[in-house]
Amino acid sequence: MADRRKNILFIMYDQLRFDYLGCTGHPHLKTPHFDRLAAMGVRFSRAYVQSPICGASRMSFYTGRYVHSHGASWNGFPLKVGEITLGDHLRKAGMDAVLVGKTHMRVDADGMERLGLARDTIIGARVAECGFDLWERDDGLWGKGPDGYYDRGPQPYNDYLKAKGYPGDNPWHDFANAALDENGDMASGWFMKNADRPANIAEEDSETPYMTRRAEEFIASRHERPWLCHLSYIKPHWPYIVPAPYHAMYGPADVQPAIRCEGERQDPHPVYRAFMDNEIGRAFQREVVRQKVIPAYMGLIKQCDDQLGRLLAFLEERGELADTMIVVTSDHGDYLGDHWLGEKDLFHEQSVKVPLIVYDPSPEADATRGTVCDQLVESIDLAATFIEAAGAAVPDHIVEGRSLLPLVRGETPEDWRDFVVSEYDYGPTPMAAELGVAPDRARLFMVADRRWKYVHAEGFRPMLFDLETDPDEFRDLGGDPEHADIAALMAARLAAWARRPSQRTTRSDAEIEAMRHGGGRTGILIGIYDDADIDPELTQAYRGRPGRD
Amino acid sequence: MADRRKNILFIMYDQLRFDYLGCTGHPHLKTPHFDRLAAMGVRFSRAYVQSPICGASRMSFYTGRYVHSHGASWNGFPLKVGEITLGDHLRKAGMDAVLVGKTHMRVDADGMERLGLARDTIIGARVAECGFDLWERDDGLWGKGPDGYYDRGPQPYNDYLKAKGYPGDNPWHDFANAALDENGDMASGWFMKNADRPANIAEEDSETPYMTRRAEEFIASRHERPWLCHLSYIKPHWPYIVPAPYHAMYGPADVQPAIRCEGERQDPHPVYRAFMDNEIGRAFQREVVRQKVIPAYMGLIKQCDDQLGRLLAFLEERGELADTMIVVTSDHGDYLGDHWLGEKDLFHEQSVKVPLIVYDPSPEADATRGTVCDQLVESIDLAATFIEAAGAAVPDHIVEGRSLLPLVRGETPEDWRDFVVSEYDYGPTPMAAELGVAPDRARLFMVADRRWKYVHAEGFRPMLFDLETDPDEFRDLGGDPEHADIAALMAARLAAWARRPSQRTTRSDAEIEAMRHGGGRTGILIGIYDDADIDPELTQAYRGRPGRD
Repeated sequence: MADRRKNILFIMYDQLRFDYLGCTGHPHLKTPHFDRLAAMGVRFSRAYVQSPICGASRMSFYTGRYVHSHGASWNGFPLKVGEITLGDHLRKAGMDAVLVGKTHMRVDADGMERLGLARDTIIGARVAECGFDLWERDDGLWGKGPDGYYDRGPQPYNDYLKAKGYPGDNPWHDFANAALDENGDMASGWFMKNADRPANIAEEDSETPYMTRRAEEFIASRHERPWLCHLSYIKPHWPYIVPAPYHAMYGPADVQPAIRCEGERQDPHPVYRAFMDNEIGRAFQREVVRQKVIPAYMGLIKQCDDQLGRLLAFLEERGELADTMIVVTSDHGDYLGDHWLGEKDLFHEQSVKVPLIVYDPSPEADATRGTVCDQLVESIDLAATFIEAAGAAVPDHIVEGRSLLPLVRGETPEDWRDFVVSEYDYGPTPMAAELGVAPDRARLFMVADRRWKYVHAEGFRPMLFDLETDPDEFRDLGGDPEHADIAALMAARLAAWARRPSQRTTRSDAEIEAMRHGGGRTGILIGIYDDADIDPELTQAYRGRPGRD
Repeated sequence: MADRRKNILFIMYDQLRFDYLGCTGHPHLKTPHFDRLAAMGVRFSRAYVQSPICGASRMSFYTGRYVHSHGASWNGFPLKVGEITLGDHLRKAGMDAVLVGKTHMRVDADGMERLGLARDTIIGARVAECGFDLWERDDGLWGKGPDGYYDRGPQPYNDYLKAKGYPGDNPWHDFANAALDENGDMASGWFMKNADRPANIAEEDSETPYMTRRAEEFIASRHERPWLCHLSYIKPHWPYIVPAPYHAMYGPADVQPAIRCEGERQDPHPVYRAFMDNEIGRAFQREVVRQKVIPAYMGLIKQCDDQLGRLLAFLEERGELADTMIVVTSDHGDYLGDHWLGEKDLFHEQSVKVPLIVYDPSPEADATRGTVCDQLVESIDLAATFIEAAGAAVPDHIVEGRSLLPLVRGETPEDWRDFVVSEYDYGPTPMAAELGVAPDRARLFMVADRRWKYVHAEGFRPMLFDLETDPDEFRDLGGDPEHADIAALMAARLAAWARRPSQRTTRSDAEIEAMRHGGGRTGILIGIYDDADIDPELTQAYRGRPGRD
């Protein structure tokens, strides 16, 4: 192609823990294709998401901005019209941004109506889809209850299953996410007791292979311009159930002991306690749940690995591996019973740290292939990385992340960040109701550097962990007088971060610097007493007879 | 009219100091019409603007949001597309929002282009004009230098002057803002030495009477719906020059001594020092400048007062005084040499505190007429006030101010605020260059309660003043160990304020609270092990034979 820029394949998994890959050290789970990609590129060992929950985390990936900046702080909170997305930046640089899979983005319908934006226009469709052009949008959450579907949008994957002959209204659930019991009735994947059964679907029709094929179709289609393809899988996210043969690849013997200790249950932080005590926390405290769920979770990851292998082979066969930057990551982790918790939401490493591998085919990245980078990285860095890869300058008055390309190319900028920030809005959860916390106060902020992790909870005492001496994060030092200086340092970092001018997005730093010395050239003359104070050129319009032209 | 809601006349002056009115205690300046309005309504003695500079301050008035929230932190920084304005809120409530005069709003042209918004559509025009429908937009800053006009927009006031026969390209300057010298040449108002001369214009053609008439024309026009009219004068803002007879009403004998002391020049705060040492600060340190400027400034205010009287009489004659809420305020003050400073920008009371009078014709406000309210009030409160006056609930997940109607009606809410916040972005100023401060760090924040005023400057020591024992703000206690506890309290308030979820504007608190208890009703079932864990109603879609409809 004439345009020498690489295409970008930006692969996201959902709820994939950082330590459930071969290359990140899992003792039983072998992931040769993830490991191959890590050998081809750089693996980041300290990559944190901006919020350990799907929607908020993804809006940060897709805007390059903190949750505190874009405001879509929980699932289903619309990304407000006006937020500038990765797609906006890339298109401006001459690249397309195409979605295959999940974004968990909710449209700001009020905002679109206020601005008269219609979804059937090109611009309106992009605003409604988080800046992407759709190849396929499917969030993979086709739950349906007494109030109807959780997701009211089109159901392309269900349509596919129906076209393949799977009966009923919701084959996503009935086949892809349910097994059969002894009576031939559904054994729903929503019931974790069924996690060891095989999903009642041909493996090739299950969600991960389906979405891989959709990505291949996009890649093989005709392209006018270089592209970023966001291939975004729902798995290994719950429901925890996987088709054969993956359902039987792992068993209770492969389940690692839960990372938790009794000390965590003695005088826990009130917010942490509320999460431990909720239905999910209590479920994952039961060993039977872990024994059922974790092998299925591993099977789902193994299937993801096989599909990644397929995709790498597909690119290789097409001769595109040298022309495609590939990034794999996840939107957050999964506690799986660690710290007496299930799901994600809070800030232990199992929840807030994600796997991140960046394969940059450029020769400049040859020296770092197969290496691990332990710099502090945030999910907002990817938007900046992609913009730089597209050949544009990162508009750092809008995008708050930093490009990873220098790190991928073996250069660590001297002013690389000292700490990362992650946030969680528990306002919409039952835990906020139980704790009596108002929606605008139900906020948690994590500040972490290479040693310390500090959690600020509005209205409650802070938490503090020493990742060096206590890597399992068992000892909360938030109330320890001997660590008051560290807590104060972290609080000061949080305060400085919170004051950042995140909304000053209509003037760049360079434009502002240029304003510092231009006084008077458009005729605004302040502080001038008489002629002695000013260059006569600046006052020529204001001399002579009045009304002369 | 069938709609019993009052109209709202929202009058803003520009650079009007809080203490330059009769009713606020000026010893020589008599302002009977301002005083009359104060007797009709409530005067607020602790009203602070969100930023002591025109553009940023106004964007806070017009959005009801802090500068840190809307991001338009300096003059000429566009208000980003997507920010919701007072006009949006009022129209939703069935009221019109119409502009007569100045907003200092810069359109976010990039944002409009990105969203495909055209200025020749109704929606696009409102986005481009800060949410107002235009009766007339005229910012009153028709400076022109070697690079052309400061303001590139239409010039309705210049067009008016030209139609009246004033010659030349820029009669705004040549006549409204210039006098004649002894030779018949222009004595420009930009040169403060000319401030005691009469502007070379018929008084009725000068800016304040002109804009008053334009407002009267709007008020007298046909209205379909109740309206808010934002009558926004450029005066008493510089150029400091006023036509006869106002130029001769005050003289050097009426000039109050500068509020400043030698102590302020000993080891001043570095940012404060940079402002004292700039061209404007140095000019206003000269007594000759104060002697020339202040009488002209007083004359401009006297003219504003006469025009306010005219407007009140106009409404009275039309029988609309009982149907019109009237609010007068300013976008910031003017140092006029106090604290060795000119202009505004910093946080002494002369700059950051503004006059504020609210006349509410409702019977509920009868008991407070003529009273002074000393509660802490912010300029963002007006948007909330107007929304409540329009009969709508204040969307407090968007608007950060609080309605003043309870205060005007004699009720002080128990949870009224404990402190106010104001901000200043000096990034575009030469002072930032001199101090070597990057654009994203050139931020000042003021936190003030009824006794203490604290100023945080990124990268510098804080300032602290005791308004009770040092009402003139001469003694900076920012470095005083005996006040370290107060400084820490104020810093903690700033930190809490900075963490507020200002961008979570697409979900209200009520919507979030409703989310706390709805689990499972749209079929997302998390943490369920088996039937014992859940209401069977929630799983009915997931039972029986697969594929049944």
